[in-house]
Amino acid sequence: MKKGVPRWFCFALVAMASLAWNVQAFSQVDPLPSWNDGLAKKAIIGFVEATTTQGAPGFVPVEERIATFDQDGTLWVEHPMYSQVMYCLEQVPALVKAKPDLAKKPPFSTVLELLHGDRAAMKKLNLKDLEVIAFATLTGMSVDDFKSEVKKWLAEAKDPRWKRPYTELTYLPMREVQQYLRDNGYKTYIVTGGGQDFVRVYAEQVYGIPPEQVVGTAGATKFGYGKDGKPVLTKQAKLVLNDNGPGKAEGIHLMIGRHPHASFGNSTGDREMLEYTKAGDGARLAMILLHDDAKREYTYGPAKGLPDTKVGTFTQALYDEATKQGWIVISMKDDWNRIFSFEE
Amino acid sequence: MKKGVPRWFCFALVAMASLAWNVQAFSQVDPLPSWNDGLAKKAIIGFVEATTTQGAPGFVPVEERIATFDQDGTLWVEHPMYSQVMYCLEQVPALVKAKPDLAKKPPFSTVLELLHGDRAAMKKLNLKDLEVIAFATLTGMSVDDFKSEVKKWLAEAKDPRWKRPYTELTYLPMREVQQYLRDNGYKTYIVTGGGQDFVRVYAEQVYGIPPEQVVGTAGATKFGYGKDGKPVLTKQAKLVLNDNGPGKAEGIHLMIGRHPHASFGNSTGDREMLEYTKAGDGARLAMILLHDDAKREYTYGPAKGLPDTKVGTFTQALYDEATKQGWIVISMKDDWNRIFSFEE
Repeated sequence: MKKGVPRWFCFALVAMASLAWNVQAFSQVDPLPSWNDGLAKKAIIGFVEATTTQGAPGFVPVEERIATFDQDGTLWVEHPMYSQVMYCLEQVPALVKAKPDLAKKPPFSTVLELLHGDRAAMKKLNLKDLEVIAFATLTGMSVDDFKSEVKKWLAEAKDPRWKRPYTELTYLPMREVQQYLRDNGYKTYIVTGGGQDFVRVYAEQVYGIPPEQVVGTAGATKFGYGKDGKPVLTKQAKLVLNDNGPGKAEGIHLMIGRHPHASFGNSTGDREMLEYTKAGDGARLAMILLHDDAKREYTYGPAKGLPDTKVGTFTQALYDEATKQGWIVISMKDDWNRIFSFEE
Repeated sequence: MKKGVPRWFCFALVAMASLAWNVQAFSQVDPLPSWNDGLAKKAIIGFVEATTTQGAPGFVPVEERIATFDQDGTLWVEHPMYSQVMYCLEQVPALVKAKPDLAKKPPFSTVLELLHGDRAAMKKLNLKDLEVIAFATLTGMSVDDFKSEVKKWLAEAKDPRWKRPYTELTYLPMREVQQYLRDNGYKTYIVTGGGQDFVRVYAEQVYGIPPEQVVGTAGATKFGYGKDGKPVLTKQAKLVLNDNGPGKAEGIHLMIGRHPHASFGNSTGDREMLEYTKAGDGARLAMILLHDDAKREYTYGPAKGLPDTKVGTFTQALYDEATKQGWIVISMKDDWNRIFSFEE
């Protein structure tokens, strides 16, 4: 054996090199295994590589890496009805118990019929009714009490088709995109038409998105003091941000203050968010999910001749704008090999 | 020389050990060199150590580490007048040029007298006048145009006493606290009664605080399209969040969604933020800065018999509450050995 470098040291070097190789190999594992190879998957990976490669023309400094996701219909199932609407309806019995004179008053009486099994009653409820029910069940209590109620409901409520908690009905491919973006220095935000306080209750546990990165429809709160002298914030029946349509761009400015570099949506309510995203300089990614998988989930549009719906409407005009503006349409049927994590 | 480990390898080991020792020594360098030893400095260091030491009773998981700072009078000089008020006043000539009929109309005519050197004119301006001037100079333009105007003004405007840009008049001890908190996993936020869009223009460069971590008084914006078809947000004369007093707690809920673990303020406008901070469970730090240094900065209260003021009022009642509730009062005179980074 030659003097100088001992054999163990050579072994150590080889082991370290091998470790380094493994680390590199690991980083080349597919970050989006639930996505089929295709335009959509390529667009996501191409965007991340372009914006995070130092010196590349599309490079984005880490502090500007913001990605926004609509929630209902983009991150989790929204049919047959938004889960927050289900929450509001299912809170009505408790509300009526506290205020018995509401039991015979529409729209609360209609909701009671509906909950007692009269499905036809649903048709009697219009948008104005839903607003009345929303204000009655989402305001007037403290922020902390509301949070407890939502937590309790989420632990018990189940989606009628899959018989699972709503929080299990998230789309695995989208969670992979969120993780992939975060692994590459992006801050991931939810920008939802749903209630900001509602979504914040579970976003951290379900998506790894902290409360301060949830932008949603928000009501005013009122500062006051409880009986123990401690500060209490009470939810008011006054809208501060209607985070839908143009309100999504306005909400992004209010809460984030920059154009996102990537945005993901699925309906006309996301149009302005996607436009606002693309209006920023440099590399920008806009993607929109089409629900075209009748077997594994639902089909609705009315884009591409799919059935029309009031819940997550994706019009042909929006589809045409997507094509014209270079947004990427994700086909649930063709682009995703797996939808839910509980599937085989 | 013995076979086996070569001498260079021993040297390398010693060098590495020495490096490790240096790193450790470096980490024990005083994180707050501009603070004199005393209760305030001890409180900050004690709080950080208690909340970041795994297993300690006060330990706070990294995702919950939120610290909020008032800006005017807490992070930078607010006397003789808030810099944003100076901005609004100094925008009046350009406003009058665009709308000449305003030149003879109070309060705009009063501002022109003031800018032409008639200091007594300032006394003619009441709060309502300032509101009129604020709406005229802070709304009606696009978010991007406003940003450009503020940038331009900040590059040129100077504080009358120090003859330096306002952005240099930040308190070095507070910037040290912000850095120390960030080095320990805290997200630092500004929670200001000033305009959110105004402060966002410089907060990243001046404090290392990104736009999405600036909470301030905010007006609505309106989404629309420019002549080129691109989305434009226009600033509306409608308040969404009055981020002062109780509005600071409400703003923290709206924009952050958690009780901060540490908060720093200096006036009655910060009272509810400090109360809201202390109302959370576990270790919480509330600190309030008293301007008691006539020589190096200003003195005002009226707490502790200091001169009364309408700009950053610190009442005796607030001082008494601080003492009773275990908030730490920072004495600018006694606790800070250096105030500005440009001082020797």
